Amino acid sequence: MTRIEPKTLKGFRDFLPNQAKKRQYVINTLKSVFESYGFEPLETPALEYEEILLGKYGEEGDKLMYRFEDNGKRRVALRYDQTVPLARVVAQYANDLPVPFKRYQISNVWRAENPQKGRYREFLQCDIDIVGSSSPLSDAEIIAVAAKSLEKLGFKNFKILLNDREAFQEIVEEGKASEKEINSALRTIDKIKKISEDGVINELVKKGISEKRASELIELIKKQEKSDVLKDIDLYLQNLELDKSLFEFSPTLARGLDYYTGMIFEIEVQGYDGGSVAGGGRYDDLIGIFANKQVPAVGFAFGFDRLIEAMEQLDLFPKEFGNINALITIFSKELKEKSIKVYSTLRNKGLKLEIYLDENTPLEKQLKYADKKGILYTIIIGPKEARENKITLRNMKTGAQKTIEKEELEKELTP
Amino acid sequence: MTRIEPKTLKGFRDFLPNQAKKRQYVINTLKSVFESYGFEPLETPALEYEEILLGKYGEEGDKLMYRFEDNGKRRVALRYDQTVPLARVVAQYANDLPVPFKRYQISNVWRAENPQKGRYREFLQCDIDIVGSSSPLSDAEIIAVAAKSLEKLGFKNFKILLNDREAFQEIVEEGKASEKEINSALRTIDKIKKISEDGVINELVKKGISEKRASELIELIKKQEKSDVLKDIDLYLQNLELDKSLFEFSPTLARGLDYYTGMIFEIEVQGYDGGSVAGGGRYDDLIGIFANKQVPAVGFAFGFDRLIEAMEQLDLFPKEFGNINALITIFSKELKEKSIKVYSTLRNKGLKLEIYLDENTPLEKQLKYADKKGILYTIIIGPKEARENKITLRNMKTGAQKTIEKEELEKELTP
Repeated sequence: MTRIEPKTLKGFRDFLPNQAKKRQYVINTLKSVFESYGFEPLETPALEYEEILLGKYGEEGDKLMYRFEDNGKRRVALRYDQTVPLARVVAQYANDLPVPFKRYQISNVWRAENPQKGRYREFLQCDIDIVGSSSPLSDAEIIAVAAKSLEKLGFKNFKILLNDREAFQEIVEEGKASEKEINSALRTIDKIKKISEDGVINELVKKGISEKRASELIELIKKQEKSDVLKDIDLYLQNLELDKSLFEFSPTLARGLDYYTGMIFEIEVQGYDGGSVAGGGRYDDLIGIFANKQVPAVGFAFGFDRLIEAMEQLDLFPKEFGNINALITIFSKELKEKSIKVYSTLRNKGLKLEIYLDENTPLEKQLKYADKKGILYTIIIGPKEARENKITLRNMKTGAQKTIEKEELEKELTP
Repeated sequence: MTRIEPKTLKGFRDFLPNQAKKRQYVINTLKSVFESYGFEPLETPALEYEEILLGKYGEEGDKLMYRFEDNGKRRVALRYDQTVPLARVVAQYANDLPVPFKRYQISNVWRAENPQKGRYREFLQCDIDIVGSSSPLSDAEIIAVAAKSLEKLGFKNFKILLNDREAFQEIVEEGKASEKEINSALRTIDKIKKISEDGVINELVKKGISEKRASELIELIKKQEKSDVLKDIDLYLQNLELDKSLFEFSPTLARGLDYYTGMIFEIEVQGYDGGSVAGGGRYDDLIGIFANKQVPAVGFAFGFDRLIEAMEQLDLFPKEFGNINALITIFSKELKEKSIKVYSTLRNKGLKLEIYLDENTPLEKQLKYADKKGILYTIIIGPKEARENKITLRNMKTGAQKTIEKEELEKELTP
C-alpha cells in the first residue's frame, strides 16, 4: 500500500480532548439553560434534498453550499444552516408539534468558505427559536435565554444591544427617505462603531448617495426612538427580573440580513474584541416558506467558536471539568493486582480514579501520562506500600509525596 | 416560487423532541460513564480527503461511501466510521496524545445502505477505544466500561459473550484445519444461535466444504478452551469487582470482521431480540495504517439505535427527563403581567416552570400545549386568583384542580 499522509481536510478541524472538553462544557451549559425554559432538542439530517436548501440563502449561499449527486442519482446538499431545516420540519410535522414550537438545535453546518482566521468550512451552530407566536413575550423570552446562558457560562460584563427593524421602515413610510436609501443604510450602519460615522458615510457615497444625504440618513436613524414593541419587551424583561443595565437601545443596530422583520439584538462581551457572541431577532416571513403561509418566529444563535474564544480569553473555563482526580500507577507486574484492587475499592467509594493500563510501562512514563492529561494526583503502590497496606500520594504540580492510609485518600483529594 | 414539498431525504431521519430527548439522555449517560474511567472526547470532521477513507472498508465500503468532488476540485468523502479517523488522528498528533490514548467519539456516520428496518443512511456511532496498550488490563477495562454503561442505563439482564480470535488461529497452527476452512467458519459460525448448527453446516457446504468436514470444524471450534488472555481478563474483571454471572465464554463467537486480532465480545440483552447492543474487541493491526507501524488497540461500539429500541421495549427511560414541572398559563391580556410575575418569582426559587408565550391564545389551547409537551401541571391565574393572590394548580392527567398559595407550589410539585 502506498503511504497516505494523515491530514485534515482543508478548512476543517479536529478537536483533540482538551478542546473537545471545552466545547462539551459549553454545549451542556447552554442545553441546561435552554431546557430550563422549556426548549426541546431537534435533530435534522446532515443531508437534505438539494431543492429544499437551494435558493434559500441567496446566490452566495448556493455557491458555498456542499452539493452533489448521491449514488441513487439524487441531488443532495449538506446542511447549510438550521433555520431552513426548521422551516421544513414545521411544515412537515405541523400536527405533531406544539404551538408555539420551542426548539433548539446544536449541530454542525458546512459552507465552502475561503478558510481564514475564525472562518471554517465546518462549524457548530447553536440555534434556539420560538415558532408560532408573535407576542413580544416571545421576543423577551428569547433575549432572557440569551442573557441567562451567558451568565451561566460565567460572563459578567456584556451588553445586549436592541433595536426594531420596523424603525427603519418607518422612516420610509414617513417619507423621510426612499426605500433604496434605507436599504443601503441597513447594510452599512452596523459598522458605525468599527469604522466610525465617517466610514459609514464613505461607504454610502460609494453606493451613490451624496455625502450630505448620507450624513442626514445617519442622523435620521440615530434619532429614531424606541418602538412600542421594544417598550413592551422592556416591560417583560423587567417583569422577568433581568438586570436593566444589561440592555441598551441602539438605533444604529441593523443586522444586515434581509429576513428580520421586527426586534433585533446583538450581544457584545466587554474585553473580547472578536465581534458579537450572539445575535438574533424576529423573522416572521421565513419559517412559512414550505407551509406557504406566514408563520411568526423569533430566535437567536450563539457564535459558538467566538464563545469559546471569549471564554478562553476571559479565563471562564473551570480549572478542571469534573473528570479524574487521581491516576493509580502500576509499580510492577508483581504488584499490579494490588493496584487494581486499590483502584476498585476506591472507585466503589465514588472517587474519580483512573488506573494506568499497562503493567510494563516504567513509572516515570506513567507519571508523564498523568501530566499530559492534567490529572493532579498520582497514587503509587510499591513494595513498601503494599507491605504496610498504604498508598503514596503524589501531587503532580508540586512533586510533593506522602504515604497515607487508603481511607485518608478521599479527604486528601477534596480541596 | 414553485411549491417545494417538505420531505426528509430517503434513508435519513428527523428526530422530533420526544425522540431527540431520549437520544440525549442515552448519550449523556454513556458520556458520564466513559469519562468516569478517564476516557476523553474526540471530534473529527464529517468530511475527509477521499484517499484517507478509500480502500479501508473493503469493496463494499467504497461502494456505500458518500464521495464527491468539492468546489475546490478535491475528492472528499463523508465519515464512514470513527476508527479510520482515529487512526489518522493517532498518526497526525502522535506527540500531543497521551499513551495510551483513551478516547470516545459519538457522532454520525453516513452509508448509502439500502434503507430497511433498522438500517439508515445516517446513524450515530458511539465508539470507545484504548490505543497504545496491549495489556489485557485494557481489554478488561473496555469490557468493564461496556457493562457499567448498560447498568447505568438501567439494563439488568444482559450477557457478555467473550472469545479470543487467536483460538481460531490456533486450530490452524495445530494443523487441525486449513486457513481457508477456518476463515469460512469465521464468517458463518456467529449465526449458530440464529440458524442452528445445521444451518451453519449448510452454509459451509455452500462454500465447498463437505458436510462431514463442516460438522468436524464446528466441533473443533466448540471445544476450544479459554485462552490465557481470556483467563487474564477474567482475573482482572474479578479484581474490578464485576459480577461474574455477566460473562460467558463463547467459543463460537467470531465477529465476522477481518480486523480483530485478540479478545472479542458481544453483549446480548435478555428480552430484546433486535440483535447484540454492543460489540468490540482487540484490533492491533488497524490503528497503525497511517503511522506505518503496529499500534495495539482495543475498543467497542454501542449499536445506538438498538440501545434506544431495547430501552423502549424494556421501559427503561425515566418517566420525565427532568424538564418542566408546570406551565403557567395566561388567562387574559389584562392578567398577563400577573402571570409573568408569578412565573418569575417561582422560577427564581428554582422551580422548573414554563410560561405560555402568547396572551391571545384561549386557555383551552394553552392546556393542550402542556399536554402535547407532557407537562404534568398547569397553573391558572384568573381574576379570582389574582384578587386573592393565589394560584390554581391543575393536574393534567387527572383533571383535578385546587387553588393554593404560591408558597405551597413547591411542595405540591414534589412527588
